[in-house]
Amino acid sequence: MSGKPPLAISMGEPAGIGPDLIVQLYQQRQQLKLAPFVVYGNLQLLAARSRRLGLELEFAASTPAAAADVFAKALPVCDIEADIADRPGKPVAKTGKLVLEAIALASGDCLTGACRALVTAPIHKAALTNIGFGFPGHTEFLAHLCAGGGEAPIAVMMLAHDDLRVVPLTIHVPLAQVPELVTTQMIVRKTRIVARDLSTRFGIEKPRIGVTGLNPHAGEAGTMGQEEQNIIEPAIALLGREGINVSGPLPADTLFHPPRWRQFDVVIAMYHDQALIPIKTVAFESAVNATLGLPIVRTSPDHGTAFDLAGSGKASNQSMLAAIRLADKMTAAAR
Amino acid sequence: MSGKPPLAISMGEPAGIGPDLIVQLYQQRQQLKLAPFVVYGNLQLLAARSRRLGLELEFAASTPAAAADVFAKALPVCDIEADIADRPGKPVAKTGKLVLEAIALASGDCLTGACRALVTAPIHKAALTNIGFGFPGHTEFLAHLCAGGGEAPIAVMMLAHDDLRVVPLTIHVPLAQVPELVTTQMIVRKTRIVARDLSTRFGIEKPRIGVTGLNPHAGEAGTMGQEEQNIIEPAIALLGREGINVSGPLPADTLFHPPRWRQFDVVIAMYHDQALIPIKTVAFESAVNATLGLPIVRTSPDHGTAFDLAGSGKASNQSMLAAIRLADKMTAAAR
Repeated sequence: MSGKPPLAISMGEPAGIGPDLIVQLYQQRQQLKLAPFVVYGNLQLLAARSRRLGLELEFAASTPAAAADVFAKALPVCDIEADIADRPGKPVAKTGKLVLEAIALASGDCLTGACRALVTAPIHKAALTNIGFGFPGHTEFLAHLCAGGGEAPIAVMMLAHDDLRVVPLTIHVPLAQVPELVTTQMIVRKTRIVARDLSTRFGIEKPRIGVTGLNPHAGEAGTMGQEEQNIIEPAIALLGREGINVSGPLPADTLFHPPRWRQFDVVIAMYHDQALIPIKTVAFESAVNATLGLPIVRTSPDHGTAFDLAGSGKASNQSMLAAIRLADKMTAAAR
Repeated sequence: MSGKPPLAISMGEPAGIGPDLIVQLYQQRQQLKLAPFVVYGNLQLLAARSRRLGLELEFAASTPAAAADVFAKALPVCDIEADIADRPGKPVAKTGKLVLEAIALASGDCLTGACRALVTAPIHKAALTNIGFGFPGHTEFLAHLCAGGGEAPIAVMMLAHDDLRVVPLTIHVPLAQVPELVTTQMIVRKTRIVARDLSTRFGIEKPRIGVTGLNPHAGEAGTMGQEEQNIIEPAIALLGREGINVSGPLPADTLFHPPRWRQFDVVIAMYHDQALIPIKTVAFESAVNATLGLPIVRTSPDHGTAFDLAGSGKASNQSMLAAIRLADKMTAAAR
């Protein structure tokens, strides 16, 4: 029996590509040398999707403790009962309960240490809001689940491709709101989390952190916006006094040429497109989303449910594979 | 004698790398198969910089008409008298007049057809504002010079690297001002110019134009900002009715993965970093700035004066070379 607990994968939206990617990657577990994982979801649905894709796989209801032994012969599933048909591309509201329960059970088993880390397959938010899901997405739901009734931790989204790591400080908000949402306090709090988690979970003892400016050319000494001087520089000064290795504000346009970003272990950007344009330009299919700041390790592929590809076997599994590998790597030394 | 008029190069800031790049590229004119050009600037300064770099070059005072014949043996210079010493890295205010006169003479000779196109070496704005230069940069100064006393044409900045072309609709303004500056009328006017110039100067008969959204995921149907629906979509609809092939608003983060941007001949972006991050990520040293909308063709390297490298021979000449090649290509069929 393997010494390490398994990785947990939540199945995600049943009508999306999540089940496709999970069974495809399980089938290639030996060539890919994948660490054992256990899927939180519905066994019958996974088996039906596997048959649809022409794969000959075994499935076994399992617990996290048994999963590592089961993994060689059958895909271990923490089976959640549900009345569900395999209809790729056709989401229905009644599967929402299963989707949320899978995430809740999987994150609970990560919190106890029964599983090492959580990899979440994509969900379809519209199907969940119908049953009262009030969170902007996975990340905030997980922060709530990890709060244990207390104040939710600050969850920080990081996108990674090999050594290129970017953190958007603001995410899914209108661009016009970005300048008022970026505060010195927010930069300080999130950068501390990034510095700590890169050390504890990525083994980078004193990470080199680059912080972008908000304005073109980082404001060019105040001639194109003052947020650099009024908001960002005070945060960088404060973080520097705490011993964090942080540089900036740096002009964002010249920062993502490889010799330049390689000077940093992570780049903290002010808003969505400033962080996501460069990483999606260089790593469209293999970028991974990792959530920092939580008591559990969580990664996910950087794409959605892709209903048009579900059940076809044609969706790229590169980002899901990268998410599994990153979760494995972030907890390789764990427990 | 060559049938085509020469390219015009304005020398730019004497203390910057402009003179270095010009003499270095002239020295390699044969290997690089460069079209004849004539430099507008000071002959003594160019000769001194050439000696400093250890190059053995000939220089000749010339007119545009004679330049093509002179070019094989000596660098043709439309010589502008100036009291000037070769002091790389040390700009002085008294050379400002020479810098502006070079641009004015060169653009004038492009307007008459004596030269085919203008390539501008970098200027140092601080040295020019001291002598009353009131323009944000080269581009606006050239629009003024081309106005002939009437209303200045709308100059549109485009950055190009091979087939990747991007146009930032707003440029050197604070990010907080971008949402109010982007109007339907501005998108329509600038896109018309881009469509026309790609046809007349790039030989792309009906260019495929992609337009980004302003907000993350192009606003995701209005849930993250309404500018897409209120500002950008009406512009695209209007342009479409005029027969222009324009798509959008497109999420900017997924637009610059090569198979995606290759669906477009040019991408029009809403602001500086949205356009410049992707092109500088993939083509840091060889992107070229081309000004559309003017009665003359004008290109420039996409970098500044680099005072720290001036006179050292170590500055990359890739962007200047690309600027010369693009000016040549844009006017290959001219006159």
